[in-house]
Amino acid sequence: MTPQSEDFSAWYNEVVVKAQLVDRGPVRGTMVIRPYGYRIWELLQADLDRRIKEAGHDNACFPMFIPESYLRREAEHVEGFSPELAVVTVAGGKELEEPLVVRPTSETVIGEYMAKWIDSHRDLPLLLNQWANVVRWELRPRMFLRTTEFLWQEGHTAHIDEADAMRETEWALDTYAAVARELAAMPVVPGEKTAGERFAGAVRTYTIEGMMRDGRALQAGTSHYLGTNFAKAFNIQYQDEEGALQYAHTTSWGMSTRMIGGVIMTHGDDKGLVLPPRLAPYQVVIVPIGRKEQGEATAAEARRLGAAIKSMGIRVHVDDNRPQLSPGFKFNDWEMRGVPIRIEIGPRDLADGVGTLARRLPTAEGQGKETIPLARLPEELPQILADFQAFLLARAEAFRNEHTRAVDSWDDFGAQVSGGWALAFHCGRTECEDDIKADTAATPRCIPADGPAEQGDCVKCGRPSPYGKRLIFGKAY
Amino acid sequence: MTPQSEDFSAWYNEVVVKAQLVDRGPVRGTMVIRPYGYRIWELLQADLDRRIKEAGHDNACFPMFIPESYLRREAEHVEGFSPELAVVTVAGGKELEEPLVVRPTSETVIGEYMAKWIDSHRDLPLLLNQWANVVRWELRPRMFLRTTEFLWQEGHTAHIDEADAMRETEWALDTYAAVARELAAMPVVPGEKTAGERFAGAVRTYTIEGMMRDGRALQAGTSHYLGTNFAKAFNIQYQDEEGALQYAHTTSWGMSTRMIGGVIMTHGDDKGLVLPPRLAPYQVVIVPIGRKEQGEATAAEARRLGAAIKSMGIRVHVDDNRPQLSPGFKFNDWEMRGVPIRIEIGPRDLADGVGTLARRLPTAEGQGKETIPLARLPEELPQILADFQAFLLARAEAFRNEHTRAVDSWDDFGAQVSGGWALAFHCGRTECEDDIKADTAATPRCIPADGPAEQGDCVKCGRPSPYGKRLIFGKAY
Repeated sequence: MTPQSEDFSAWYNEVVVKAQLVDRGPVRGTMVIRPYGYRIWELLQADLDRRIKEAGHDNACFPMFIPESYLRREAEHVEGFSPELAVVTVAGGKELEEPLVVRPTSETVIGEYMAKWIDSHRDLPLLLNQWANVVRWELRPRMFLRTTEFLWQEGHTAHIDEADAMRETEWALDTYAAVARELAAMPVVPGEKTAGERFAGAVRTYTIEGMMRDGRALQAGTSHYLGTNFAKAFNIQYQDEEGALQYAHTTSWGMSTRMIGGVIMTHGDDKGLVLPPRLAPYQVVIVPIGRKEQGEATAAEARRLGAAIKSMGIRVHVDDNRPQLSPGFKFNDWEMRGVPIRIEIGPRDLADGVGTLARRLPTAEGQGKETIPLARLPEELPQILADFQAFLLARAEAFRNEHTRAVDSWDDFGAQVSGGWALAFHCGRTECEDDIKADTAATPRCIPADGPAEQGDCVKCGRPSPYGKRLIFGKAY
Repeated sequence: MTPQSEDFSAWYNEVVVKAQLVDRGPVRGTMVIRPYGYRIWELLQADLDRRIKEAGHDNACFPMFIPESYLRREAEHVEGFSPELAVVTVAGGKELEEPLVVRPTSETVIGEYMAKWIDSHRDLPLLLNQWANVVRWELRPRMFLRTTEFLWQEGHTAHIDEADAMRETEWALDTYAAVARELAAMPVVPGEKTAGERFAGAVRTYTIEGMMRDGRALQAGTSHYLGTNFAKAFNIQYQDEEGALQYAHTTSWGMSTRMIGGVIMTHGDDKGLVLPPRLAPYQVVIVPIGRKEQGEATAAEARRLGAAIKSMGIRVHVDDNRPQLSPGFKFNDWEMRGVPIRIEIGPRDLADGVGTLARRLPTAEGQGKETIPLARLPEELPQILADFQAFLLARAEAFRNEHTRAVDSWDDFGAQVSGGWALAFHCGRTECEDDIKADTAATPRCIPADGPAEQGDCVKCGRPSPYGKRLIFGKAY
C-alpha cells in the first residue's frame, strides 16, 4: 500500500478498498458500501438518530423524485444545484411530460408538504428528519467524500420566528459537533460559513470542520437557517395568535456518509485504518495461534474469551476460521482494517492464562503491546477501549493545534495552508475569497464560534475585517 | 369517512390519509410517509433487522442507478421488469451515453459484486442484506400497496449448492411469517408460488399471503431460490475443495412498506385503523378531561401517569396540548388512528385515583371500557397490551378461517373467491390459471406449505392435479 506520508490521496484511495469499506460502483462516481463500511454508518446513525428523536424530531420519508418545477421556485437553490442533477425522463416505457429530478436535497419537496400540514401557530415547530439517499453528479468523485449517490440524514424544520429557527440551527450544529467528537474522535471546529460558502438558498450556514492528517479541512456536517426564503417559495404560512398570516422560518441540516471519510483521514496511518472504538465494527479481534492440536486448544480458548467479551456488550470477532493464513498476515490485516484492540493467544499462553494485548496505536510510552491475564480482560476492556477512544481524540486535537497557526502576512499564508490551517483576518468580500482560492487553493472554512475577539486587516487585500475575529482558512475536500 | 363495509377501497384510501400515515406524493403513484406511518415502518424494521443480523447476514448498500445493460443479462428478469422501469438519461447537464435504470430490485448489481468478492468455497455462504428504496412504475398505484417508489429490505445470498440455498430461502420465508404473525398480528399462510406467479428469474418463489378484511389476499413478503440463473448471467463462481470452478446458487428475499397496508387492511374497521401494539407508534394515549383548574389537575395527573408508563418501556402519548378540542373529538381521533389503549382521566376520577381504560376493540364480553385504579396501571399495561396483540391475531385468524373454504366445483368457485379464499385443486397449467383469472379475477395465491396431502382434479378444467394438495385461490392486491 502507498504510504500515507508519500501520497495521501493514493493512500486514501487504496485503503478504503483494501480495508473492504467500499468498492467502486458500476457507474462513475458511485460506490458500493461493503458490510465493514456500512457497519460504521449504522453505528453513527443509531447514535445520531437517538439524539434527533430525543430532541423531539420525527422521522418521515419523502419521495426521491422531485418535479423539476419545484426546484425553480427558489432562485438561488436551483442555480446552486442545477449542474449536479440527475434527471429521469422516461418511466414505464414512456417519455415523461415533466422530467423528474432525483433529489440532491429535499428542501423543495418537504417545503411543499410543510405548507400543506401547517395551518396554525399550534402546528409549530414542525420538526422532521429523514434518512435518505441523495444524488449530486460529481465531476471529481472520491469514495465517501464526493460520490454521486450518498446516504445522509436531512433535518427540515419550520418555526414561528427567526429566534426559534436559529435555536434549532444551533442545536443541529452542536449535535453534529458532539457526534463528531464523541463517536468519531474528530475534534471539529464549529462556526459560520462566509457568504460565499453558504448553502444555495440559505440566510446563514453553519459547519463543523475537521482537520485531516494531510492538513486539509473536511466539512463534516452543515446546518442552515433558511429564513423565509423557502417559506415564500412554497407558501409555508401559519395563522398567528391574532389570526394574521405569517411566513414560517425554516431550517435544514445534514450529516452524511462523508463522515466515514473523515474518520479514515483523521486517524489513519501508513499501516491503514485506525478506527475509534465507538465506530469500529469490531472493537476487539482475537487471534488464536498454533497448528493442529495446539491451534485447536487456543481457538477454543479464543472462542470462550470472545463469548465473555461479547457478554460485556463489546463488538468482538474471533479469527478462528482462516487456517490457511499465518498469524503475521492476520495481525497486519486487522491493523490495516483499523481494529482498536487485538488479543493474541499462543499455545504457551494457555497454561499461564495469559495473552498478548496489542493496541492499534500505543496510547502512551510502553502501552503498545503487553502480556495480560485473560480472566480479568472482559472486565477491563471497556476502560481500555474508552482510553483508546480518548487517546485518538487527544491525538487528533494535538495534530490540529500543531498544524494551525495565526498568520498575518500574505507571504506566510501560502506556506501555512499548504499543510494546515491559517487563522487570518479577512475583509469579507467574496471576490477577495476568490482571489485567495485562485492563488493558494485555500478557502475560508468557517468563522470559528469559539474564536477570540480580535480586530485586524485582511491578510490578502489589507481592508479591515468585519468579523471581529480571525477566520480559519485551509484547503478543503 | 366511508364505512369499510360499504366501500373497502374508498375506506382504505381515506383512512391512510386521515390517520396521517401518508400523503399523496407530488408525482403520480408516489407517497410521502408521514411520521405516524414511518414509525410503524421503523418498528417493523428494527425487529426484522435484528433477526436478519442474528442469522449471520451483513447489511450493505449498493447504488440505486444500474446500467441498463446489467438488466439484459438475465432474460426473464429484464422481460419481467422492463415495463416498470424509471430511467435517468441526463445527468450533470449532459445526455448519458448509457441510460441508468433506477433499481426495481438489485439482483443484477449485487450479482456483479458477488462475482468480484467470491473466489473460493471459503467465501460462501455470502449473506447480504440492504434497506433501500426501489422504483417500479405502477399503472394502478395505491398507497403502501403499489407505489412507484417504496421502501424495503432485500436479502441477497450466495451458496455452495442448491441444498444450502434452499435452506436460506426457507429461513427467509419462516422469518417473514414470524414477523407478520408476531408483530403485525397477521396470520399469514406460507407457501410456494405456482410457475405462473414466480419472480422474474427465479427457479422457485415462496410467499406469505395474508387475508384482508374484504376477503382479498395480500402477498406480504417473498423469498426466491434463483438457482444458478444469476450466477451464470454475472459469472458468480467459486473454486471448490478440489479446485474446480462451480457456479454459486443464489437467493433473494424482500419485505416492504406494503406490510403497513397489510396491517391496515387486516385489522381496521369502520372507525378507522386498529394497530397491533407491537407496531403502534403510540400503544397508549392518555386523555385528561376538564376545563380550567380541573383540566390542569387532570393534565398533571395524566403527565405523571404517562411518565410512569413510559418508564415501563411502553410508547405512550399524553394528549394535553389541544385545549381547543373536546374530549369526544379526541376519543374519536385516537380510535380512528388505531391506538390500542386509551386512558381517560376526568375531574371526578382524581379523588378516587381511578381512570377509564378503553380498548380499541373489546377483547371479550365486557372487556371494552372499564374503570381501573391508576396506581397499578403501569405494571398491568404490558399484559393488557400483550392480550390485545394476541386478540388481534386470533380475531384475524378466525376471520380468515371463516372466509376460507374447500371448493370442488367451478360453480362454487366464483362465489367463494368473491369474498374469501377457495381451497381448490388445480392442473398446474399457466393457461388454465389465466382462464381462471379472466373469469373470476382470482389467482393461485400459493401452494400452502402446511396444506394436507390430498389428490383431486382441477376445479376449472378437470385435469388431475400434480401438487398433491389444494392451492389457495383468491383475488389479490
